[in-house]
Amino acid sequence: MLPEKTIERLSMYRRVLQTYQDNQSEYIYSHELASLLHLTPVQVRRDIMLIGYTGTQRKGYSVKELIKKINQILDGGTQINAIIIGMGHLGKAISNYFNSKQSKIEIVAAFENDSAKVNRIISGIKSYHIDNLEKILKDTYATIAILSLAPTEAQDITDRLVFAGIKGILNFTSIPLNVPEDVYIENYDMVTSMEKVAYFVKEKIKNENSL
Amino acid sequence: MLPEKTIERLSMYRRVLQTYQDNQSEYIYSHELASLLHLTPVQVRRDIMLIGYTGTQRKGYSVKELIKKINQILDGGTQINAIIIGMGHLGKAISNYFNSKQSKIEIVAAFENDSAKVNRIISGIKSYHIDNLEKILKDTYATIAILSLAPTEAQDITDRLVFAGIKGILNFTSIPLNVPEDVYIENYDMVTSMEKVAYFVKEKIKNENSL
Repeated sequence: MLPEKTIERLSMYRRVLQTYQDNQSEYIYSHELASLLHLTPVQVRRDIMLIGYTGTQRKGYSVKELIKKINQILDGGTQINAIIIGMGHLGKAISNYFNSKQSKIEIVAAFENDSAKVNRIISGIKSYHIDNLEKILKDTYATIAILSLAPTEAQDITDRLVFAGIKGILNFTSIPLNVPEDVYIENYDMVTSMEKVAYFVKEKIKNENSL
Repeated sequence: MLPEKTIERLSMYRRVLQTYQDNQSEYIYSHELASLLHLTPVQVRRDIMLIGYTGTQRKGYSVKELIKKINQILDGGTQINAIIIGMGHLGKAISNYFNSKQSKIEIVAAFENDSAKVNRIISGIKSYHIDNLEKILKDTYATIAILSLAPTEAQDITDRLVFAGIKGILNFTSIPLNVPEDVYIENYDMVTSMEKVAYFVKEKIKNENSL
């Protein structure tokens, strides 16, 4: 298994390489890829060596081959089914986003407790009442859940998801959740990101004023 | 200036402490705070020492005092004005989210190029046509921009924002952006988070099947 940070960077490399490919570039040097993502060339070369790919010193990496190699690592050929809990603006944004991409991850069902939002298609995804969670999970073989619901309900729903066999959670609720060790959880925390930006802006302005 | 990771954790401590306070707890031990956020007690103690606060060995930290201290560091007393570019579902989700919080960060204006979405209030925020960006930035003294627009337009808009004096950017577009060194940028990357979860779930399933 590769380290988390390497997986993060591979995902970013792939996105940049796809844009590069659209611009009809056949080869890319490690220092070019590095500079596009504000990384060091050494870091890029180490990551790519780690997935068993090598370029040529003269031309760099073949864009097409490198994308193919990253696809193998990240997607591994198999389709992964995900569900999403909570179809407010955030749930819709996430659904639109993933539906518009070519991806091996497919969102196969959405869940809501608002009766106006169930038993219909929202942002391209069939939406069910949360009471049907366990049944639909069984039918769809989903292994990942995306949480875009109210924080107050998040832990209860998480417990149900884990009990029903969900293996990975992408948590957009900005509260920490308890899961057993064999469930992978990624917290996607808007508040923290915003507070970080605010802090560094504040410090910058302070420094400028004191010059 | 404190390290980025410390700022991230302080933001998370504060959120957890606020919940703790709502539950009428007066004191918290470092090991309790650590366990709520899946950190080590040593890490928590180091961070809190770094901001110049100390608890007592017998009772731990005063929840109220610690929140106050973190407020001083993160908010520093001054209101920070932010704008948001792009009022699709994601823009609305972000706006609703921040408007519902007590925060020193206020979203003061939204920008759109869709004429149906300008010159009206959306999710509690006055929305302007993107053509008025520079003028409104000047009027509102905003220093932070949140980007929730189409990736294709993101770099152009970023250049305009930087030129107009924006000091911090929270980038939700999932593409890397070029900014000068004195502008702080935080990338909030949905695709990478999702691909990370998918990778580790896939590896878990593979390992289980091979047992």
